[in-house]
Amino acid sequence: MNFSIIRYILCRVLEFAALFMALPCVVGLIYKEKSAFSFMGVIAGCLLVGLIGKRYKPKSRVFYAKEGFVTVSLSWIILSLVGACPFYFSGEFPSYMDALFETVSGFTTTGGTILTDVEGLSRCIQLWRCFTHWIGGMGVLVLILAILPLSGSHNMHLMRAESSGPSVTKLVPKVRNTAKILYGIYIALTMINMIILMIAGMAPYDAVTLSFSTMGTGGFGLLNSSVGSYSVPIQRILMVFMLLGGVNFQLYYLLLIRRAKDVFHNEELRVYLGIILVASLLIAWNIKDLFGNGGESIHHAMFQVISIITTTGYSTLDYSNWPEFSKSILFLLTLLGACAGGTGGGFKVSRLIVMVRSAKNEISAAIHPRSVRRIHMNGQVVSESIIKSIWVYVMIYVLLFLGSFVLLSLNGFDFVTNITAVATTINNVGPGFGMVGPAGNYAEFSVFSKLVLMFNMLAGRLELLPVLVLFSPRTWKG
Amino acid sequence: MNFSIIRYILCRVLEFAALFMALPCVVGLIYKEKSAFSFMGVIAGCLLVGLIGKRYKPKSRVFYAKEGFVTVSLSWIILSLVGACPFYFSGEFPSYMDALFETVSGFTTTGGTILTDVEGLSRCIQLWRCFTHWIGGMGVLVLILAILPLSGSHNMHLMRAESSGPSVTKLVPKVRNTAKILYGIYIALTMINMIILMIAGMAPYDAVTLSFSTMGTGGFGLLNSSVGSYSVPIQRILMVFMLLGGVNFQLYYLLLIRRAKDVFHNEELRVYLGIILVASLLIAWNIKDLFGNGGESIHHAMFQVISIITTTGYSTLDYSNWPEFSKSILFLLTLLGACAGGTGGGFKVSRLIVMVRSAKNEISAAIHPRSVRRIHMNGQVVSESIIKSIWVYVMIYVLLFLGSFVLLSLNGFDFVTNITAVATTINNVGPGFGMVGPAGNYAEFSVFSKLVLMFNMLAGRLELLPVLVLFSPRTWKG
Repeated sequence: MNFSIIRYILCRVLEFAALFMALPCVVGLIYKEKSAFSFMGVIAGCLLVGLIGKRYKPKSRVFYAKEGFVTVSLSWIILSLVGACPFYFSGEFPSYMDALFETVSGFTTTGGTILTDVEGLSRCIQLWRCFTHWIGGMGVLVLILAILPLSGSHNMHLMRAESSGPSVTKLVPKVRNTAKILYGIYIALTMINMIILMIAGMAPYDAVTLSFSTMGTGGFGLLNSSVGSYSVPIQRILMVFMLLGGVNFQLYYLLLIRRAKDVFHNEELRVYLGIILVASLLIAWNIKDLFGNGGESIHHAMFQVISIITTTGYSTLDYSNWPEFSKSILFLLTLLGACAGGTGGGFKVSRLIVMVRSAKNEISAAIHPRSVRRIHMNGQVVSESIIKSIWVYVMIYVLLFLGSFVLLSLNGFDFVTNITAVATTINNVGPGFGMVGPAGNYAEFSVFSKLVLMFNMLAGRLELLPVLVLFSPRTWKG
Repeated sequence: MNFSIIRYILCRVLEFAALFMALPCVVGLIYKEKSAFSFMGVIAGCLLVGLIGKRYKPKSRVFYAKEGFVTVSLSWIILSLVGACPFYFSGEFPSYMDALFETVSGFTTTGGTILTDVEGLSRCIQLWRCFTHWIGGMGVLVLILAILPLSGSHNMHLMRAESSGPSVTKLVPKVRNTAKILYGIYIALTMINMIILMIAGMAPYDAVTLSFSTMGTGGFGLLNSSVGSYSVPIQRILMVFMLLGGVNFQLYYLLLIRRAKDVFHNEELRVYLGIILVASLLIAWNIKDLFGNGGESIHHAMFQVISIITTTGYSTLDYSNWPEFSKSILFLLTLLGACAGGTGGGFKVSRLIVMVRSAKNEISAAIHPRSVRRIHMNGQVVSESIIKSIWVYVMIYVLLFLGSFVLLSLNGFDFVTNITAVATTINNVGPGFGMVGPAGNYAEFSVFSKLVLMFNMLAGRLELLPVLVLFSPRTWKG
């Protein structure tokens, strides 16, 4: 294990943490908020450690998949530990553990909160909450790759470990340029979102903050009612941008280089939109008696479907009193998540497609043991190693899911709370049902439970392996 | 597809169905019950169709895995359809659909009932309910293999499709002799169980009936309180025989041929007993305040753990008011099941062992991509094809589980009822939580839901592939 290079990159991560916190700090100073000073102290600390650490250049440039996993996991842990400090020092959070939970929930774009009242927070703290979503949505290492001139061999390992989906591909030959393109698209979409929200009548501060949460498919908001108090047009704007955040960003690049045909034929996009359409219609039909007219039930059904499948977690109302069938569909969407290569978390639509096709394939193989059939996606053969990685993913996922469920039940809360809290944290959604429903929060959980849930959020965001690798003794040998 | 041989074997299955029903019929005649006549009619019908059909010998002896799957699935479906007739004709069941549900639940050793009062049933009907568990526990095709001189090529395919566990092995070179040994052990254990229950003071009829349910790890009983009204010694006897039913029967054979060392070193057995011990202690600690003394809490904890892990489903009390932690552990045991090659259903301990080891292996492989490590069990390398089959099993299992969950939610019952009803039927356990808890039943479910649950029970008992193969168009081609 090349510790020196990991240390070096972690120091650079601290510098970036300082850079990120400068935004809420400045906003706090503009609004003359006391909490701005808690950012200043943390920024100073990060810069000090980061700049000193950076001066000791790594002894070796050796960098393999192992180093990539460890670097990414530790970066996210350090970023969370540091990012929680302003929350804690501001005195607006009950404890450091709660501040840490909120930060992990932020960076992983989960959006589950331990706060019972978000409207009482200072503006700089609110901005930092939502900004963590934006940073975590595309990934901090991807940003570092885009900006810093790291040597080529590192890049792909870091990118693979942090990006979402079963197979991470480069858009252009250089990883660095790929990272630049991704962040360019991300920033552009966020700006468009802000502008449209402002045109729809939202105040600039609110528009900026909410755009961060929306494009990062996070779910933290500014109001205790989530987004239920906003006008229908604003809810529709949010719907569109959540939807866009859940799409593979590679497709936007294809649009930019005028390969719209490839976008149109993208199977993951089609299935993603198809699932949203079918789920919305089924729920709209199921809840139609709760609303005065069909249009309203379609609006709420579609909003909730998009919010959950993109793993954002906004809500226009408390859907925990919807009929069971609607809630079951939302629970399935919680487990599913959006497209690979987007900012949404979860299992990913592309994994589902390969999973269903390989299940069919295996049933066929049981009938005709000697016939070999390949699985295709977007006209290309899906390699055996990707299929295998998806099987392994499902298997580890199930073990993690059930293990966390039992640990969580030590709290003594009900079955539904426990099982949906696990589902919603591993998949970075935010709200579940029961105590953690759209009108609930994570305040009552024990410290131990919060640690379990934080672990789930990080493991889910980094797609299991990078975080689990930290616990393998083989990682730390040699 | 060789239809003629499938038809031929199905006719033999009908003959055996008639043979099985002769037992409750005779008992009914002894007790002078009206319901005995409903058995007579069905027996006559089965014999008529079976004997006529048997006269048309199959044109071809070709028999592959495909024919094996289809034969086994259709045998189980036909056996259920026919077995439900005496229930229905006796007038003791509300409808044919309910009678069918009870029969499928019986043959698959699930033990979930649609009856609200089992004490009011006639004795021959009660015996038939429990006898279906015994027949389904070891498998009807295995019995046919043991008795009928079918040609060798069929045998292994039929045995594989019906027996439980990831890899079905022959004890002796001939499949027929293997089947004989398995049934011999099964009959011997059941007889011992009966005798011990009678020594403990149980009436002969009750001892016979309850032994069928216990050794088949089914769960149907004679009392509305399940086994809660029996004395503690009798509950302990049942505990021991459920435990024995959940063990791989291969191990009893090894004991018979004096290879006790192999039994002692069997990893699945060790993990199975280890899980029972740990789960019992955790639950006993968790529920200790509910009982006057530690001994009582250990008794109930251990009884419930053994009842659930062996997928029997007896209960000594209504454990749905136990603390959440205990219920979570029982839920996990519901999903797990007992050992491969026993009469218990579920996922099986051996699959869990391979799953955990291969998960560890894959994490290692992510760190050192070029290091190849093999998975061992009982000192032997687990083949890639078995590992793959387990991954595929998990994947299909998850898809089936979630799909059934959504379909079931159309009933409008609560989340816990839906999710545990799916778990408990796929794994052939019987009781879940909520409406289907130990004090509940399946009476309120819609016909559609009952069909979904019946499908789950059959798919679970036959370990997914044989039943799913029926739905593949490729099965019926050529």
